[in-house]
Amino acid sequence: MQYHVNDSLVDASEATVSVEDRGFLYGDAAFETCRAYGGDIFEWAAHRDRLEATCETLGMAGAVPADLRERIAATLDANGLADAYIRASVTRGVQPGKLTPTEEVDPSIVVIVKSLPRSGVGGESVWDAPATVQTVERRRIPEASMPADAKTHNYLDGILARLDLRGTDADEALVRDVDGAVAEGATSNVFLVDDGILQTPSLAGPILPGVTRAVVLELAAECGIPVETGTYDIEALRTADEAFLTNTTWEVRPVATLDDVPVGGGPITDRLTTAFDQRVESHYEA
Amino acid sequence: MQYHVNDSLVDASEATVSVEDRGFLYGDAAFETCRAYGGDIFEWAAHRDRLEATCETLGMAGAVPADLRERIAATLDANGLADAYIRASVTRGVQPGKLTPTEEVDPSIVVIVKSLPRSGVGGESVWDAPATVQTVERRRIPEASMPADAKTHNYLDGILARLDLRGTDADEALVRDVDGAVAEGATSNVFLVDDGILQTPSLAGPILPGVTRAVVLELAAECGIPVETGTYDIEALRTADEAFLTNTTWEVRPVATLDDVPVGGGPITDRLTTAFDQRVESHYEA
Repeated sequence: MQYHVNDSLVDASEATVSVEDRGFLYGDAAFETCRAYGGDIFEWAAHRDRLEATCETLGMAGAVPADLRERIAATLDANGLADAYIRASVTRGVQPGKLTPTEEVDPSIVVIVKSLPRSGVGGESVWDAPATVQTVERRRIPEASMPADAKTHNYLDGILARLDLRGTDADEALVRDVDGAVAEGATSNVFLVDDGILQTPSLAGPILPGVTRAVVLELAAECGIPVETGTYDIEALRTADEAFLTNTTWEVRPVATLDDVPVGGGPITDRLTTAFDQRVESHYEA
Repeated sequence: MQYHVNDSLVDASEATVSVEDRGFLYGDAAFETCRAYGGDIFEWAAHRDRLEATCETLGMAGAVPADLRERIAATLDANGLADAYIRASVTRGVQPGKLTPTEEVDPSIVVIVKSLPRSGVGGESVWDAPATVQTVERRRIPEASMPADAKTHNYLDGILARLDLRGTDADEALVRDVDGAVAEGATSNVFLVDDGILQTPSLAGPILPGVTRAVVLELAAECGIPVETGTYDIEALRTADEAFLTNTTWEVRPVATLDDVPVGGGPITDRLTTAFDQRVESHYEA
C-alpha cells in the first residue's frame, strides 16, 4: 500500500509525521473521509468545501493545497484502486513550541486510502447487517465549546461514545446533545421516518453537516418524500416507523434496533437507498 | 536533539509516528507535561498518576509503560539536560481501521524534551512578564461531553481559545464554562486573592486538576494562607486584590491585566512564589 505524505507517495509502513507535528501533539488538523466510485471521488466539491471551512475555523484558511484532488488521484493510481476509502488530512504542521498557532502555516498533507467493494446498483455494502444502536451517556460537545461543523483530528468524543458500547453488542452509539435531544451517531447522521415524513436533527444543533446527509435530503426532495428537520428525543426515534444512519462509508444503513427496541428500515429507506445507489452508479458510467 | 519513540532514542528530525497511529488520526492519546529540575522530575508521582487516570478514561488502563520514568531520564541524559521541559505521550497506537478501539493496545510512547533555564531560588522564569489575560467567548467543554481531568491530544479547545486572542496583545485566554463561571486559562489554572483568602475554581467544574495547582494549594496550607475553592465569575477576578496563573512550565505567574483591567500580584502571590521556589530548590539540593 502507498500513501501520500506531503509531496510524496510513500510505502504505508514509512508513512509518518513528525512527533512535533501539531496534528499529532494536539489533534490540530482538519480531515475528510471520502469515497471513490470507479476512480471518481463522490461529492468532491462538498468534501473540499467542508475541509476548507474546517481549516478556516482552525485559523488556517488557505491551508488546503490546490492540488489535493490530484494527490488523492495519484494515491489511488499508485495502489490500482478505483473503489476506495480515502482519508485526507491537513494539519497545522510543525511550529515553534507554543500552543498559540503562528499565522504562517506549513501544513502537513496526508492521504490514506483503503480498498472498498464496488458500490452502486447491484453493488456491495460495507456493513454486514443493519445497525444495532445504543444510546450512550456521553453528550455531543456544545457549539459554544467546539464548532460542530469542523471535522478535526479531535475525535475523542466519538471514541468515548463508542467505548460506552463495550460489553454490549451494539455497533453504533447514539449521542444526544447536553439538553437530551438526539444529535447523531458517533460516526453517522441519523434519520427517522414518521407518518411518511423523513426527519433528521436540524443543523441548528451540534451536528456534523454530513455530506451523505445532504445527498439524502436532496434525493428525498427529488423523490417527492416530505422532509422535516427539527429537534427529536430518543423516544421519537425508538417509536419511528423507520430509521437509518448515513455516512460516507456506510452510505444508507438501516437501524435494526435502538436500545434493543426493533426499529428497522422500510419503504422510504428502501426508496432512498435505491436512489442513492443510482446516484453512485452514475460515477461508474461516467 | 534526541527524542524517545517507543524503545529507541532517535534524532529529533527522525522522531515520527505512523500516519495510522490513532494519536495522529484522532488525537487518541494521553500526555503529561513535566519539568526536570537538576535532573529530577518535579511531582513525578502526580504526573504519572494523572497519565494513568487519563489512559483509564480512554479505555486503555495499563498502557503507561512501567519504565516511563527511565525513558524520560534516558532522553534527558542523551541531550545532557538537567533543567528541561518534558512531554510524554501514550497513544493507542495503530489498530485496524475502525473507530471503536480494540481492547488489546500496543501503545506508542513518545518523549520530547527541551532545555529550560534553571529555576528555584534565584532561578529564572520561563515567562518574560506577568500575564496579559483576555476573556474569550470559547467555553470549556462540559464534563458530560469530555472528562475535564483527562489530559489528551484533543487540545483544540485550548487552541481555539488562543486563536480568539489574535489581534490582541494578550498572551493567555481566560475560558469560562458554559454557565459563564471562570474555568481556567487555555493552558493554566487560575487563582485570585480576595480579602486575604486564596481562591480558585473548584474541581467540581470542568477544570484540569493541575499538578502545579495542587502544589500551590499545599504550599498555601503550609504558609497558613486561608484557601477557598468555589465558583467565580469574571468580575470577581477583575476586582481581585491579586491574581495569578499556574502551570508546569510557568510555575506561578501573576496576572498583570484581565480584559485590560490591572490586577497584578501582591503579597500572597509573592509568598507562594517564594515557597514554590524553595520547593523547587530542594530538587537541586537532592
